[in-house]
Amino acid sequence: MRLAEQKLEKLMRRKNLDVILFWGMENIRYLCGFTGSDGAFLFAPKERFFLSDSRYTEQAKVEVTCAALVTYKQKIPGIVQLLKSGRYRRIGFEAGVITFESYRRLRENLPKLVWEPLASELGPLRAVKEDEEMHRLKQAVRAASASFLKILPGIKPGSREKRIAEDLECRFRKEGGEKPAFDTIVASGFRGALPHGAASEKKLQAGEAVVVDFGTRFRGYNSDETKTLVLGKPDGRTERVYEIVRKAQARAIRAIRPGVSVRRIDAAARDVIQKAGFGKYFGHGTGHGVGLAVHEEPSISPKGRGIVEEGMVFTVEPGIYIPGWGGVRLEDMVVVTSGGCELITYLSKELKDNIL
Amino acid sequence: MRLAEQKLEKLMRRKNLDVILFWGMENIRYLCGFTGSDGAFLFAPKERFFLSDSRYTEQAKVEVTCAALVTYKQKIPGIVQLLKSGRYRRIGFEAGVITFESYRRLRENLPKLVWEPLASELGPLRAVKEDEEMHRLKQAVRAASASFLKILPGIKPGSREKRIAEDLECRFRKEGGEKPAFDTIVASGFRGALPHGAASEKKLQAGEAVVVDFGTRFRGYNSDETKTLVLGKPDGRTERVYEIVRKAQARAIRAIRPGVSVRRIDAAARDVIQKAGFGKYFGHGTGHGVGLAVHEEPSISPKGRGIVEEGMVFTVEPGIYIPGWGGVRLEDMVVVTSGGCELITYLSKELKDNIL
Repeated sequence: MRLAEQKLEKLMRRKNLDVILFWGMENIRYLCGFTGSDGAFLFAPKERFFLSDSRYTEQAKVEVTCAALVTYKQKIPGIVQLLKSGRYRRIGFEAGVITFESYRRLRENLPKLVWEPLASELGPLRAVKEDEEMHRLKQAVRAASASFLKILPGIKPGSREKRIAEDLECRFRKEGGEKPAFDTIVASGFRGALPHGAASEKKLQAGEAVVVDFGTRFRGYNSDETKTLVLGKPDGRTERVYEIVRKAQARAIRAIRPGVSVRRIDAAARDVIQKAGFGKYFGHGTGHGVGLAVHEEPSISPKGRGIVEEGMVFTVEPGIYIPGWGGVRLEDMVVVTSGGCELITYLSKELKDNIL
Repeated sequence: MRLAEQKLEKLMRRKNLDVILFWGMENIRYLCGFTGSDGAFLFAPKERFFLSDSRYTEQAKVEVTCAALVTYKQKIPGIVQLLKSGRYRRIGFEAGVITFESYRRLRENLPKLVWEPLASELGPLRAVKEDEEMHRLKQAVRAASASFLKILPGIKPGSREKRIAEDLECRFRKEGGEKPAFDTIVASGFRGALPHGAASEKKLQAGEAVVVDFGTRFRGYNSDETKTLVLGKPDGRTERVYEIVRKAQARAIRAIRPGVSVRRIDAAARDVIQKAGFGKYFGHGTGHGVGLAVHEEPSISPKGRGIVEEGMVFTVEPGIYIPGWGGVRLEDMVVVTSGGCELITYLSKELKDNIL
């Protein structure tokens, strides 16, 4: 994590900060290795503190080697106590994670500190992945893909969406994954128009398209992938919509290389869908970073900011969702390379390979 | 939800508010029925708005019947647009849920509104359960208990903690539950000293105590229960620690009735453990409310506030955790009745019934 520490030290100099308070479990895990679900981390150039309650004291002793350990009885008073020492004047904090109420109570108890919100400044912290992170992401994809192939025979007319989601999620761990990265989406037929259609009691029917969006985790790192399957010969409209989404995805992937703006990548996919006349049926962004969080930087969307860099990992997932009819989404994960990008996910998104 | 609406209207009069912005998905689900994972809800005495992005438009049409529906492209600008109308002057908001950054951006764009943080004021909103909520909680407990009994034969020397957690979590849905309410804890032998010991690769050994903390959901409502099992005849210390925890739990349960302070219930359990000389090994609160969130009001702890009321549902879960040795926790869910309380969980916590 030397790279991350250098980034933080640079940010602290630029913002004239003495210390940064980390509140989100993803950044805490990233910076000090703690895998539990509650705690706080203080990062100063020459010292680090990890704070947690007694539930996690033993775990922190094993996991956190880069910081002094502090056990508090209550979180806010525990942090206040440590910061009261007076050694810091200006403190940065994770404004996009901490609740207003926690911030208010900290500030109220530490009125002499100058509080500097950090939001977009911290976004890029985890965006470029290191070798060990790439390894974990690939293992997560592998576990998810192996699981998908195992349960594929159950995706057929008469199966319930919920049962398919259940079977897939239970399979993840048998294939070496951890828990599901998110609630698996299985949306068949008209339900495909719900981009986040949680699996329901609906039964799959012959001829329908089925959107399956799934992922698992490996040592904290997530996978995220979407297949759209067609149960039998696709009708003309399904085929047309599928091929437009496929083309949009291919265009976006071809646009990716270091230095390109996230908006340009989004536009590459969006233009294809708009020109085909389906623009209003593609309401979400083209992609998002994936790592310790399922959704993290960069955001590949019309209002996203910044350029992509070598080593960033994100999804490319255009979709078309037509109310009352259904939908198609195709999602792959890519890593940006020096000359373009490489797919991390490997299950085919070609229509011919997705007709069951 | 008439009771909840009355509570909110009373709160608005007391705080002189024109509208409340809800940000947390639990309160949003509670107040308007939306089960998705992103959105916002505006509650004013004579109007309600549910806002979400296009991923959820179709779902909201089905689920949200009590509010006008608004689809935004981006969350903050969408809310700003609606609030800009000028019909409100003073707005309350969920300070314990919204991030500092989201608050800051809303406030920056709506400088004429007076923003009133609501934190402890909203805590009690969901604490007293209605009939339908009780039904769902009991169904969640039933699904979790049935699952536990099904996988019990696999809890034996040689089994890995992780495999036990996996089997249990995969069983939940077969028994009518939804996903796990939280990551199942299976902590055997010395790992029992980690109150939140995520299931590991460790194999169970004869003679060890095994803490299993598990729960599932039913239509959004969670269960939460902990059994401590002993693999074979318990040694003297295990027996002694178990009986102290059991006695602490019984004392707390006996202390529960409408009007009693949460601190007194906590103290009832804590006194037993302290008098037995294990006070420093019981580092967490005695219990917490359970409902749409696994942890909600009331907090049964030494610093908790308020009294318990008829219809509240919470856990009673004292524990003793001795580093290097292990631990015991016993957790049941109770509902407060007019004369005391009733257990919702029904698996035995008697030592004799937990020796395998």
